[in-house]
Parts: sequence; structure tokens; C-alpha cells
Amino acid sequence: MVKTKVISIGDEILIGQIVNTNSAFINEKLNCLGIKVKKVVTIGDNRQDLLDELNDSIINDYQINLITGGLGPTHDDITKPILLEFFKDELILDDKVLEKVKSIFAKRNVVMPETNIGQAMIPSKSKVIWNEYGTAPGILMEQDNKIFIAMPGVPFEMKAMIENSVLPLIKEKYLGNPEFYHKSKTLLTAGIGESFLFEKIGSIDNLLQGQKMAFLPSPLGVRLRIEVQGRTELEAESELQRIEKMLYEKIGDYIYGQNDDLLEELVGKLLVEKKLTIAAAESCTGGIISGRITDVPGSSRYFKGSIISYANEIKENILQINPDLLMDKGAVSSEVAVDMAVRVRKFLKTDIGISATGIAGPTGGTETKPVGLVYIAISLGDKTYSKELFLGDNRHRNRIRAAQATLEMLRKELLILK
Amino acid sequence: MVKTKVISIGDEILIGQIVNTNSAFINEKLNCLGIKVKKVVTIGDNRQDLLDELNDSIINDYQINLITGGLGPTHDDITKPILLEFFKDELILDDKVLEKVKSIFAKRNVVMPETNIGQAMIPSKSKVIWNEYGTAPGILMEQDNKIFIAMPGVPFEMKAMIENSVLPLIKEKYLGNPEFYHKSKTLLTAGIGESFLFEKIGSIDNLLQGQKMAFLPSPLGVRLRIEVQGRTELEAESELQRIEKMLYEKIGDYIYGQNDDLLEELVGKLLVEKKLTIAAAESCTGGIISGRITDVPGSSRYFKGSIISYANEIKENILQINPDLLMDKGAVSSEVAVDMAVRVRKFLKTDIGISATGIAGPTGGTETKPVGLVYIAISLGDKTYSKELFLGDNRHRNRIRAAQATLEMLRKELLILK
Repeated sequence: MVKTKVISIGDEILIGQIVNTNSAFINEKLNCLGIKVKKVVTIGDNRQDLLDELNDSIINDYQINLITGGLGPTHDDITKPILLEFFKDELILDDKVLEKVKSIFAKRNVVMPETNIGQAMIPSKSKVIWNEYGTAPGILMEQDNKIFIAMPGVPFEMKAMIENSVLPLIKEKYLGNPEFYHKSKTLLTAGIGESFLFEKIGSIDNLLQGQKMAFLPSPLGVRLRIEVQGRTELEAESELQRIEKMLYEKIGDYIYGQNDDLLEELVGKLLVEKKLTIAAAESCTGGIISGRITDVPGSSRYFKGSIISYANEIKENILQINPDLLMDKGAVSSEVAVDMAVRVRKFLKTDIGISATGIAGPTGGTETKPVGLVYIAISLGDKTYSKELFLGDNRHRNRIRAAQATLEMLRKELLILK
Repeated sequence: MVKTKVISIGDEILIGQIVNTNSAFINEKLNCLGIKVKKVVTIGDNRQDLLDELNDSIINDYQINLITGGLGPTHDDITKPILLEFFKDELILDDKVLEKVKSIFAKRNVVMPETNIGQAMIPSKSKVIWNEYGTAPGILMEQDNKIFIAMPGVPFEMKAMIENSVLPLIKEKYLGNPEFYHKSKTLLTAGIGESFLFEKIGSIDNLLQGQKMAFLPSPLGVRLRIEVQGRTELEAESELQRIEKMLYEKIGDYIYGQNDDLLEELVGKLLVEKKLTIAAAESCTGGIISGRITDVPGSSRYFKGSIISYANEIKENILQINPDLLMDKGAVSSEVAVDMAVRVRKFLKTDIGISATGIAGPTGGTETKPVGLVYIAISLGDKTYSKELFLGDNRHRNRIRAAQATLEMLRKELLILK
């Protein structure tokens, strides 16, 4: 096993202002290659602490060292000078990087601040790791067959570097002929809690037979992460398939996707496939459903628009929900949810209407209609129905869960549609 | 400064399956006491790695050592046996803990599995840290005036232990008469990039005079985290105020809030204060603006609703934008943005209308209207205007940045409103 360490630099992590999601991302990506990170260390923007960690890597023979943070244009970016010091190197100008930095500012129609020239200065013994999205290039230094790769801490810049440069490089250098082959897959479920899934799955030992699986709950649903190993790639693959098949048999009804699938993307594909258009009427979700649908590139092919009818007067005046219905049944009711879906569909002239109305909390609940009660509805072809959800008492999570349930209801309808 | 280390144990962190939020919580709590954690180390469920870390704490003189994870009833919970080994101790039964464990199972109406008796066995030299919510007690060991506190990894159990036991204990033991007082504050900026802020601030040395500040960029804007220390609390406070004052003088125009402020909450407070209602017309943001506004509890007091006019036909038929204007100027234009804001305000009968229309990408850009071009607009009283934004080429980030810019434009208008 290649001994690997991740070093996260940043006072903001040590004071708890941000959570270290960078290392989680790196750890997972390496794990997919079958490399389990041995240690993650987080230190501050502090010269001696970073020098100590670099030393520790040399002494304790960490072959892969991935460093995030402290690479930027401002004074608190210390990684580069410390790499210079540690590897006894000096800076040279990299023309390609300078060109790239200039082009980024040109695109934004602004003059590049002087400080950014420094971004194109890199250690002479290093190799540049290309930064697709930002001005600070990554830096690769090598010594005694150990690699040290420094990357910026900005998540989307770092992620692109890992995917495009670091993983291919590690694969080539360290993964010629492995002892064990690793495979993993994550199944995404919605609409069922962790312990109920666990019950439905039955005997875990029988399912896993020595392989591994974790339950990862979130407001979007429980993810099931399967991890297998085999002496050959084929063996690993067949183990993965065996477990996956059993899971689909037992809980397939709750699985909406795999790995990095996004429910809004799956729904989008189905809408394109079936050539259908959609509109939403949102109350308690307040735009989250529409926001997710439109986060998908190309969503203009099927999404026309929405009415966010947050206030009752908007439900009445814009969506034209019958005021008597609102009065009789209340805005949070199955009947109003259905009417919202029907009317937004008609009003915006789409094939499908979806809706959500509920009590997100923390206040507004009553004895009969408590916080967490949400009705979602769909109108499609000559089919119109609603679903009742009993969610929790956290406003933010309730809204996310309601939006997810609405999209999942839509996906299931699209699947069975002829 | 009390030298402090957090050790997180768990394979699930090292393979990137879960993000280490435990250490973020601990770091923040300690930081509030003025203790900045020096190092966070994450290791796997591995005997030697934990022994190495305990040794490192003794050698490098870490006075406070907080360990999470690996305390439970199953085979992979290794923390307790390793503490026994390291401190050459043996287990004894703690009656109070046993009683507590039994009561937890009784409450759930189930018979306690035998393995749980082990939970009540604790090292003879240790002190129990009471676990309010679970069966595994925390364990405090002390050696050479260094403390080692092991806690379960389950977040809500660990959090209660930190709040109820660990923080009071640390306060009493280490913060009687501190050498330095620490204060920190984060200023939140929007609408300006990191390197431009850096330039506008001018001499950092002159600003900081030995204190610290970090630039933390994100799609919502750059956060500036100031950290000062002083020999007295007063001195620390006055240093913080000095730096804050200088920053407000130089870049105050870009600062919208402090610490955990959310722009949508600040806007909400202003709307309540000025008794104004609002509606949005969203195109490229597709619901994100409305979603953020309604994430604030009580937003129904000022938010009526929105029209998500994603397709041009919705802009024409629902918002009633003049088709000639759409044709002449294009949907992504200052004129259409202004008209969207005016019409949604009129249509939904609110005091304010805001809007956003643009090319989020990745496709849809042209020579004259490239990806990242967004117009946002506001209509309020007899004032109506738009703003042109040049964003990047990442769809997801462009949408977040456009929504943030719209809310910030709104906040500034509300501030100057009589």
C-alpha cells in the first residue's frame, strides 16, 4: 500500500470556521483508486508546523503527500515560500502560467493587480499542476521518490486539479500491478430512513460476506456506500455486482441513482427523453425545487418556469386557487397542493405541473397541522395526485427534504410513463 | 497558549465517506475560549497509529489532547484498549455507568446485549466524562500535567460532552489567568475579488501590526478573518477595533456583514424594519434568490412570491414583457432585467421587485453576450435600475454569484432608503 498523507493548511479550519471538506474529497478519490490515506493533518498558516510536517513525511516515508491551502496571491499564503525553503529551491517565472493568469483577468474585463504576477513564479525544481479555474497553479516537488503536491484550498480549483492531474499522475506512478483490486459504488436512496433500510436489507453478513458497506444519511436521503476487494479485477467486479443485485432486490424501490447522480439530472434526462415540459408551483420550498431543476445545464429544454406562491394572496391572485378552498382546507392541504400543480401546469402551458405546500417551521404549526407537515403534488396527463410528508422540526432540512421528495415523485411518474 | 491537539479516529473519515465535522465543532468551541487548536490529526482504526499520536503528544508537549471516535461496543472500537496499553492501566467496573447503560436500553424497551457491559468498564486511573445521550462514557486520563480525553465519534453525544464537561474542565484548569487574550472577527464582503480587496487594503503590515488576518474566498464573496491577541482583554479588543475601523474605511463599501451573518437574514431584517414587501422575477437564477429569501424563518412577513420566468414565453405571457423588447434587446439585457423587476412588483403588488437574467452557461454564450453575462435589477419606490455582472464560466457558481449580487444590491438600497 502506498503510504499517503494529506496536509490541510488553514487557520480557518483550526478555529472551526470551515469544515475540512477538501480532505474528504481527496480521501474519497484516492480510496476509489484503492489507496487509503493513512493520516490527515490539519495545521495553521504557520511556517514551523508545515516544515515539521514535511520533515515527518520524509522521516516516516510517506510516498504521496497532498497539501491543500496557503497558495494564493495574499500575504497569508505561505506554502510556496516554505516549499522553497524546505527543498532549497528558488523561484522562476513560468510563462504559460503568467499567460493564464492574465487571461483570467482579461476575461473579467479588469486589469490584473500586480500581486498576481507572483502567482506565475514557481520553484525551479517543481512541475506545474495546471489550475483550470484559478490563478494559483499547483506545485509538484519530488525528493527520494516521494512526491509533494501543493494545491490551492479553494475547493473547486483543487477538485479539478485532483481529477485532471493528480489522480492520473498517481495512477501511472504507483498503481502498475496491485495486490488487491478495489471497487466501490454508492447507491442513492430517498424516502426512507436509515434504520428502516437496515431492517429491509436483513442479514448484513449474508449480504456483505466480508466486504464493506456504510450507511450515510443526509437530508437528500441515505447513501449506501459499497466497498469490495478481490484478487483480480474480475473478482472485485463480480462481488460488487452480487451485493448490488441483492440490494436492488430488497430495497430497489427506494434507490434513485448511483454515485454522483443528482436527482435533478436524472429527472432532466427523462424529461428530454419523453419530450415533456414542466412548471412548478412552490410554497414552503420557496424556489428550491425550481433552483435545483435549473441547476442542470440545458434545463431550458424542458423547464418553462414557476410560480412561487408563498403568500396566500399569490395563491389566490396569481395561481387562482379558489379562495373558498384555501379557507376550507387551508393552504397546507392535499387539495390545495393538487390545485397548485394543476393550475401552474395550465397557466404556464406545460405537460407537467408539480407543487409543494407545507409548514417548514420553526413556527406556524398547530395541533392538527404540525411543523413538518408537507403536501406535494403532481399533475401529468390525466393523472393528478398528492403525497403527504411528515418531516422533522428543522426548517432548513424540511425544505430540502420536501424538494427532494417532489423530484423523486416526479422521477417515478416519468419512469412508468408510456 | 495552551498547546492543543485533536485526534480524530475513523476509517470512514480517511476514505472520505464522512467529513470531519467533529473537529470543526471542537476547534470552534475552543477558539471561543481563546484556545487555538494547533493540530488536527485524523488516523484510522489502527493501534500503532494511535500509539504514535499519543507518544507525539507527550514528546511535543501537547497539554490538551481531545480524541474522538473508536469508543463503542463493537470490534473496531480500539480507543479504550490502546489507552490502557499506553497508560499501563487496567479496567474496573463503574457502577454508575452500568446503571446508565442499562437505563438507556430499558427506555427503548429492549434487553441490553451482553457486549454493552463492556461500556461500563473503564481504566482505573481515569475519570469518567458523562455521556448524556449514549452508552459509551468519555474517558479522561492525565499524565505529566497533560490531559487526554477520549470521546465517542457520534456527533451529538460528543457535542454534549464538550459543552457540559470538557469546556468547563478546560476553563478551570487552563484559563485561570491567561498570558494572552484572543479575539477574532470575520468581515464578510461581496462583489469584489480577493486580489482587488488586497490592493484596496494597501499595506497589510500597517494594517495588522503583528496581528493576523486571512482572506477566505467563496462564491458568496471573500471573508476576512481577523485574529488579534493582547496582554489584556481590553488591549485585544482595542486592537480588533483598530483593524476593523481601518478595514471599514478602506473597503467598507464591500462589507455586508460579520461572522455568521447571512445576507438573506440581513435583508430580511431590513425589510421587516422598513415594513416593505418584496417579489422576485428570476430567469438565470431559476429560484435561488427566492429560495434563499424564504430560508429565513418568518420571511412570510415580507416575501410574497416570485415568477420564475425561465422560458421567454413565460416572460411574455406571465410577466407580460413586451415581445418587441425581448426581440430587440434580447432576454439577457439591462432593459429586460429592469422590466422584469418592475412587472413582478406590479403583478404581485409588492413594494419592491428584484430580478436576474443572464447566461449561466456552459452553452448559450455569443460574441456580444458571453457566458457569465448577467443583468440584475431592482424596482423600489420611484427608483429602478439594473447592474451588469461579468461572472465566470461555471454555471453553478455563476448562479450563486448572481443571486448573491442581487441580494447585496437590495441590501444597499434598503440601507439608504429613508
